[in-house]
Amino acid sequence: MSVTAPQGFEAAGVAVGLKSTGKPDVAVVVNRGPLKVGAAVFTANRAKANPILWSEQAIKDGVVEAIVLNSGGANCFTGSFGFQTTHQTAERAAELLGVSAGDVQVCSTGLIGAGDEVFRGKVLTGVEQGVAALSRDGGLTAAEAIMTTDSRAKTSTYTGDGWTIGGMAKGAGMLAPGLATMLVVITTDAILTTEEADAHLRAATHVSFDRLDSDGCMSTNDQVTLLASGASGVTPDPASFRSALVDVCTDLALQLQADAEGASHDIGIQVIGAASEEDAVEVGRSVARNNLFKAAIFGNDPNWGRVLAAIGTTDAAFDPYDVDVWMNGVRVCTEGGPDAPRDAVDLTPRSTSVLIDLKIGDAQAMILTNDLTHDYVHENSAYSS
Amino acid sequence: MSVTAPQGFEAAGVAVGLKSTGKPDVAVVVNRGPLKVGAAVFTANRAKANPILWSEQAIKDGVVEAIVLNSGGANCFTGSFGFQTTHQTAERAAELLGVSAGDVQVCSTGLIGAGDEVFRGKVLTGVEQGVAALSRDGGLTAAEAIMTTDSRAKTSTYTGDGWTIGGMAKGAGMLAPGLATMLVVITTDAILTTEEADAHLRAATHVSFDRLDSDGCMSTNDQVTLLASGASGVTPDPASFRSALVDVCTDLALQLQADAEGASHDIGIQVIGAASEEDAVEVGRSVARNNLFKAAIFGNDPNWGRVLAAIGTTDAAFDPYDVDVWMNGVRVCTEGGPDAPRDAVDLTPRSTSVLIDLKIGDAQAMILTNDLTHDYVHENSAYSS
Repeated sequence: MSVTAPQGFEAAGVAVGLKSTGKPDVAVVVNRGPLKVGAAVFTANRAKANPILWSEQAIKDGVVEAIVLNSGGANCFTGSFGFQTTHQTAERAAELLGVSAGDVQVCSTGLIGAGDEVFRGKVLTGVEQGVAALSRDGGLTAAEAIMTTDSRAKTSTYTGDGWTIGGMAKGAGMLAPGLATMLVVITTDAILTTEEADAHLRAATHVSFDRLDSDGCMSTNDQVTLLASGASGVTPDPASFRSALVDVCTDLALQLQADAEGASHDIGIQVIGAASEEDAVEVGRSVARNNLFKAAIFGNDPNWGRVLAAIGTTDAAFDPYDVDVWMNGVRVCTEGGPDAPRDAVDLTPRSTSVLIDLKIGDAQAMILTNDLTHDYVHENSAYSS
Repeated sequence: MSVTAPQGFEAAGVAVGLKSTGKPDVAVVVNRGPLKVGAAVFTANRAKANPILWSEQAIKDGVVEAIVLNSGGANCFTGSFGFQTTHQTAERAAELLGVSAGDVQVCSTGLIGAGDEVFRGKVLTGVEQGVAALSRDGGLTAAEAIMTTDSRAKTSTYTGDGWTIGGMAKGAGMLAPGLATMLVVITTDAILTTEEADAHLRAATHVSFDRLDSDGCMSTNDQVTLLASGASGVTPDPASFRSALVDVCTDLALQLQADAEGASHDIGIQVIGAASEEDAVEVGRSVARNNLFKAAIFGNDPNWGRVLAAIGTTDAAFDPYDVDVWMNGVRVCTEGGPDAPRDAVDLTPRSTSVLIDLKIGDAQAMILTNDLTHDYVHENSAYSS
């Protein structure tokens, strides 16, 4: 049921020709209240698409009535014309819904540099058709409308004690912290203040989407938005709600990882024994971004030397000659030397675990990544042509 | 003539079975003096191979009599046994040459974790055969003996005013600053003090090998060594010598780029209009390490959006919405929007230029990289098996 699982939300996905396939390409999600609480986190990239520039300003009062999302064009580096397109998108939705344009979030995904008059016309048509099609059953179609190279729609729900969380996500490449070509909308009917929504969202994305680093490339368009309607009438226990939100975000992040462009392995890099969580994240991310390591996993080669070479480039606290490395449960390196033979490791399953013990402290972190494959090169060398 | 072009040097390359192909795999270069000046720069990776740990200490007095290099095994993460192998290598060469072991540099390249008793035996045999085979004509064979996945030997020479510089290099992957699986030996018969040799070498590598970033992966074994024999009897003009050394280092770096594993494009990323050289390097390196950009170039796709997305992740001074980007001479992006159409750019030649104008200052820098190809993935997924 995606974003319409919680009470108080309606959604729709419509097809207006932004995708050459004729599939749904504009999604609208509306919060019918009674609360209209919204919080969002945005890409850390300084090259921000026009929808990001708009939504960052519009979210500041913590009020969100609706969110419009389109695939088929990122509306990034499209100049002032592109910003006007985003503005008109919010205004058109606001008119139709009888709300303020400043309370409408806009998200776009697709090719950078794409956002001409034809694009604008289609998006505005999508707003009109989308608002007309809004329903309590529209969550799944909305999730389909935001797909680009995704092979499947990504949704998640969590049922709490009298309240519910629902979510949808898209993203299959450019997946890196802060965030990815990742658009995520999470809804809840729990009663939350603006401050609570913001704090919960930042805490949850910090340990979920921010730990997904498929290809090290940071997008210009990422946005994760949390909308709270309060329609359940229930004020949740804060710890329980945060835990549930982490679960939903992690579930969606794992779905993004599993659908990463061209990947043949989903790799979980768990770093333990670190002096701090920051060190564990730095070490995990360095391995996740090492092309030689990623190519080796594609080749089912437990090449632990590339793991050590990658972590050696970090500033984390550890002794490079006293690190243990496990792959799929087999310790292949200990104390700066080989351990189990390479052929003791079976890397043929898609799900791959790499465990790195820095043996210097008690902190840990998990980074999710993918391998570097022929299909990744193929998909990303042919994307815009 | 490689490293034996300058007077005062002898070299040899011999085959002892470290390579399964039977090709030369151990090189020895000896400085016959009268000066025995040596300087070296090493990988910045904290995970350092045993030869690096040895050579870093041995170079400290600025005296180098000889250097032994082997392919077919990196002798990295091979524990104390591996360090003893390096020590024995230096001792065996020193005995045979009648010099101090502390004045013998050792370099290794090949698979990390490889360095057992068989490896040790072959390397020591290589030292014996190499010293016996030393000659004034041995430079080219030495250059062949250090090749791993290189498709050709890399050498360079420069003739100055009464003095000469010669060099050899190997490296085809793991090419990133500080340095690469890059072994380089440069010789000169100019008269240099230890301090001059060190300063010239650091200045030259800073603007040549350190600006080559083929795949973002930093090696555990990199070493660039400069040996000066003074045999010409000529003390060079310092500026002329440094300029010549930059030329030789740049020539070798370009040869490394041209032979990078699986690459189909040699990409020069020139950043101009930067507030500082550091900013220009940071911006160029960020683009050079962006897999989506690299895959697009492989697909002959002038996807400038990926260039802007990459530079947006840096801390350099510029306005992301006032940057110009040229590809192969065609301005494809200006002031945050599209410029010339994509099909105006011909990316089919191997040599590819990307020019980024940050329009904020006068500093500039060039970063050399390669595209991300099917062959790169293939070579690096099948390397150790």
